[in-house]
Amino acid sequence: MNIAVIGLGIIGGSFCKAIKKYTDNFVIGINRTQATAEKALEAGAIDKIGTPESLGECDIIILALYPQAAVDFIEKYGSYIKSGAIVTDSSGIKRAICPSLSALSKKYGFVFIGSHPMAGKETNGFDVSEADLYKNASYIITPCGAPEDKIEILANLARKIGFGTVKITTPEEHDRMIAFTSQLPHVLACSYVMSPCCPNHKGFSAGSYRDVSRVANINSQLWSELFLENREPLITELDILIDNITKIKDAIKAEDRETLAELLEQGHKVKTALGE
Amino acid sequence: MNIAVIGLGIIGGSFCKAIKKYTDNFVIGINRTQATAEKALEAGAIDKIGTPESLGECDIIILALYPQAAVDFIEKYGSYIKSGAIVTDSSGIKRAICPSLSALSKKYGFVFIGSHPMAGKETNGFDVSEADLYKNASYIITPCGAPEDKIEILANLARKIGFGTVKITTPEEHDRMIAFTSQLPHVLACSYVMSPCCPNHKGFSAGSYRDVSRVANINSQLWSELFLENREPLITELDILIDNITKIKDAIKAEDRETLAELLEQGHKVKTALGE
Repeated sequence: MNIAVIGLGIIGGSFCKAIKKYTDNFVIGINRTQATAEKALEAGAIDKIGTPESLGECDIIILALYPQAAVDFIEKYGSYIKSGAIVTDSSGIKRAICPSLSALSKKYGFVFIGSHPMAGKETNGFDVSEADLYKNASYIITPCGAPEDKIEILANLARKIGFGTVKITTPEEHDRMIAFTSQLPHVLACSYVMSPCCPNHKGFSAGSYRDVSRVANINSQLWSELFLENREPLITELDILIDNITKIKDAIKAEDRETLAELLEQGHKVKTALGE
Repeated sequence: MNIAVIGLGIIGGSFCKAIKKYTDNFVIGINRTQATAEKALEAGAIDKIGTPESLGECDIIILALYPQAAVDFIEKYGSYIKSGAIVTDSSGIKRAICPSLSALSKKYGFVFIGSHPMAGKETNGFDVSEADLYKNASYIITPCGAPEDKIEILANLARKIGFGTVKITTPEEHDRMIAFTSQLPHVLACSYVMSPCCPNHKGFSAGSYRDVSRVANINSQLWSELFLENREPLITELDILIDNITKIKDAIKAEDRETLAELLEQGHKVKTALGE
């Protein structure tokens, strides 16, 4: 197959490298900044630097752009895509962009399948992309009405390049769960490091600090877009979290050891039930 | 030197194993449950199972008990300790117990030095203790008026058994910093996993979930004691955190992208300035 990857940052770059490493597919890279595309070509991450016209040769097109930019790209170049080709995004939100991309797929005759690779790093860009970024990670697919055989082609590719789990779900469930598993920890990490104590943590800190603060080194533009496009589920999770922190705080304030221990025990029980 | 370790859980057990692995000191283990002491002896983690009377042979006594239990132990058995011996705790709070232990040191003629090894795991007990638990970790010392040469003996032992940093501070600064670096992440982890989404996270989660939730599998009794004994600094940090989360939430609610990106950018800047 010919596979185009649009956007050669950490996500797109890692797709290219993984596809080259684990499959025989031909990889066409398209990137706004040409120097990055040339670097990817030199590194052997792609077989060819593409143009919008190259989309016509591709069986699968992976959009690795910011959410709205992915929609804009297809609006602009959708007419080049061949009939029956699979187009997938790799965005961290689904309700906000899947309907537009589904509509564009009908207009241009390609098949749109939403997807979200659950992997990343605290840093960005092609330089930190790697062939094994997706090793054992989860690949979430929101079919949005795509035919079974096309979904299977995409799921197979995901498994081949290292994903450990393929999870099929709806845009709604995806967004609700991602608000909890991914967006909430990012809000938390940023809020946490805003404490006046943070700049002096060295010598006083260990794994707990490291883990909670890790993702605070955030791409603020990307995550602002993700948070705003997923407002309702995220606000729901933030309210639940603030409420639970406040319960623990109130028990500490009241020196109510029994209630405090019960609240902490809930955490212990949830983790134990999950086998974690 | 003869070194006694009181309490053979993960912290005490790891001290025993590290001292045996990296030094020639003779290690005497004392534990409430005799079966654990016997297991430690069989494993070669200690040279001898001690009794309160054995304390008289020891140059250094490391208390690896819950905070109040450490004070109780010395109140009960302090008279056995030889003059000039070093007694240190390994507790996660300092203001609440250092004054009592300092007073007892004057009464019985030993030298008390507060300390806190910044290492641990999500699980407890001798079985998960290990000789390299303290590798590259920070060892916080609160001298509480102990003479320089005694502090140096303890600091040297810490470096020998693997600690990467020895940080000298006051009980007040220790407690204020630990509220942020250690206690806050534990409150957060428990509050986080209380979300109704948590039991269904698999397939939707990756490193962010794993890192924030890791320490939720908490020892609820121990941490209740630590939180209550460090109420004021912890409540201060909780208020700051809730305030910062709320600021981000309000920006999301108001769809104020500029303010939201600025708030997230603060997180990015703090981490970047720290080189993290």
